[in-house]
Amino acid sequence: MAAPLRLKPLSRVAVSGGTHGNEMSGIYLAKHWLRDPRELQRSSFTITPFLSNLRAIEKCVRYVGQDLNRSFTTEFLSSVKAENEPYELNLAREINQTYGPKGSAQAFDFMFDLHNTTANMGTCLIVDSEENLLSMHMCHYIQTHYRLSPCPIYLYKSPDEEPYTIYSVAKAGLALELGPQAQGVVRADLFAQMRALIACGLDFIELFNKGTVFPAFEIEVYKFTGIVDYPRYPDGEISAMVHPKLQDKDFHPLNPGDPIFQTFSGEEVLYEGNVTIYPAFINEAAYYEKQIAFVKLEKHIFSIPSLQRE
Amino acid sequence: MAAPLRLKPLSRVAVSGGTHGNEMSGIYLAKHWLRDPRELQRSSFTITPFLSNLRAIEKCVRYVGQDLNRSFTTEFLSSVKAENEPYELNLAREINQTYGPKGSAQAFDFMFDLHNTTANMGTCLIVDSEENLLSMHMCHYIQTHYRLSPCPIYLYKSPDEEPYTIYSVAKAGLALELGPQAQGVVRADLFAQMRALIACGLDFIELFNKGTVFPAFEIEVYKFTGIVDYPRYPDGEISAMVHPKLQDKDFHPLNPGDPIFQTFSGEEVLYEGNVTIYPAFINEAAYYEKQIAFVKLEKHIFSIPSLQRE
Repeated sequence: MAAPLRLKPLSRVAVSGGTHGNEMSGIYLAKHWLRDPRELQRSSFTITPFLSNLRAIEKCVRYVGQDLNRSFTTEFLSSVKAENEPYELNLAREINQTYGPKGSAQAFDFMFDLHNTTANMGTCLIVDSEENLLSMHMCHYIQTHYRLSPCPIYLYKSPDEEPYTIYSVAKAGLALELGPQAQGVVRADLFAQMRALIACGLDFIELFNKGTVFPAFEIEVYKFTGIVDYPRYPDGEISAMVHPKLQDKDFHPLNPGDPIFQTFSGEEVLYEGNVTIYPAFINEAAYYEKQIAFVKLEKHIFSIPSLQRE
Repeated sequence: MAAPLRLKPLSRVAVSGGTHGNEMSGIYLAKHWLRDPRELQRSSFTITPFLSNLRAIEKCVRYVGQDLNRSFTTEFLSSVKAENEPYELNLAREINQTYGPKGSAQAFDFMFDLHNTTANMGTCLIVDSEENLLSMHMCHYIQTHYRLSPCPIYLYKSPDEEPYTIYSVAKAGLALELGPQAQGVVRADLFAQMRALIACGLDFIELFNKGTVFPAFEIEVYKFTGIVDYPRYPDGEISAMVHPKLQDKDFHPLNPGDPIFQTFSGEEVLYEGNVTIYPAFINEAAYYEKQIAFVKLEKHIFSIPSLQRE
């Protein structure tokens, strides 16, 4: 049995909307909270909502120069400001100064990051890895208390990879990935879900700060293992679409031999892996340029030790 | 009883994909047909597929300088090329030279224009007005022969308005508006629907050319009567979302007193009109900048005279 986790109370929490400037649930939530922050108030800590990529939000695009949510590596953060560098590079340094610096004692205790996807991922919770025990406890609390839909947990980080997302500047974090929602659109149903998930996460922090002991548990998670690109013509253009039987089936099992693509000429392309995987980000609009038709996930069960305040 | 319509056979038909560069069904259909046009071949006329806004397609945006599908007015088409003019202005003039000129005897006989919407408009057929009798006959043929989903007919033009869409350069035209589909995404289901609708429209032309007589009929249509903007704060920002009870209810009746918006603070906004209307383009991503939350349609029944070849 792993040792109980003992942590100091959390005092400063941030919530980022608009890390991608065309994912509207978080943008309109953050804009609303900046006008009226009352629903964010808790007695034991402060919550700071902010709009992270203002220029991308104004243009209603994912990013202006480079993907902000891939810009928080040590290499990027420690780079020297250069002329003609991508807009998001300096933005990442500024966000790191305000809410970090990454890895330092001054960093914010926690950051929520609000995203949408065109994929049918429901109310998905994204964490670096199962080693982020505080975030895993929050996910468990949300899964137990937010009952309107399942909240699958997606661990995105490969073992040897450095965290590169915006919330990595804080001491811990969680991204919400809600879909399906078209870019540039705010749907009332997803807006309400995101709002309720954040309220649930803040309630968890309040309980922790006030001394609640959270027992150990086992938890099912989906862990990133790789990507699958679209079939392509020799000139690089995609030659196929996500198969109708795979479309919208995020987090469903995909078995060897199952259809994954349909070419524009009408042929089926089958999954050639050796084991069952769980696809996610299926047909995500922003991933065409990243050459990702879907990501491959493996299902795991992890044991998380108990948590309490120091 | 109106006089029968007698028209010459159609000899040249064009199909535009990518009039909006992030509406992917038509873009990938046109790209496919440019590689392999076999399925477009008919014996009595030629079909020319083309990608209309290449620069917008490359950037995966609706347009680069101005909305191409609002650029085919006489004023725009007759303007003199100027430095720093919007990219689409010259593009419209070029398309008009190739497939028109608008209103001339040399113009193509028919143009299909392929669109997607983030709204739940299903397989919608868009025509200027009920006075476009050839297009109305095609719509009727499609409604009778394409049985996988209803195909509501949307008449977009106000009585005193000049046609401004890309297909107005041809002698007649029809736009397909399929949704919901996120910008930048191609879904196999909508792709197959659009492909089948075009095949159906081409079959109609082939039958007409070969002498089939199409009897008179009465047909139900939805006619544009105005738009509804989002509620806004004094600074111009939207203060509300489409109400969950209205979301996805395109072409359903909306009655006075029905909820249409939900403010970010949670209040309901009710429809204050005096009569039942039929909303469409509900929560279309591209219409936020046009200040349109949805368009208002009225239902009409029109009598269309019989059609046969001269």
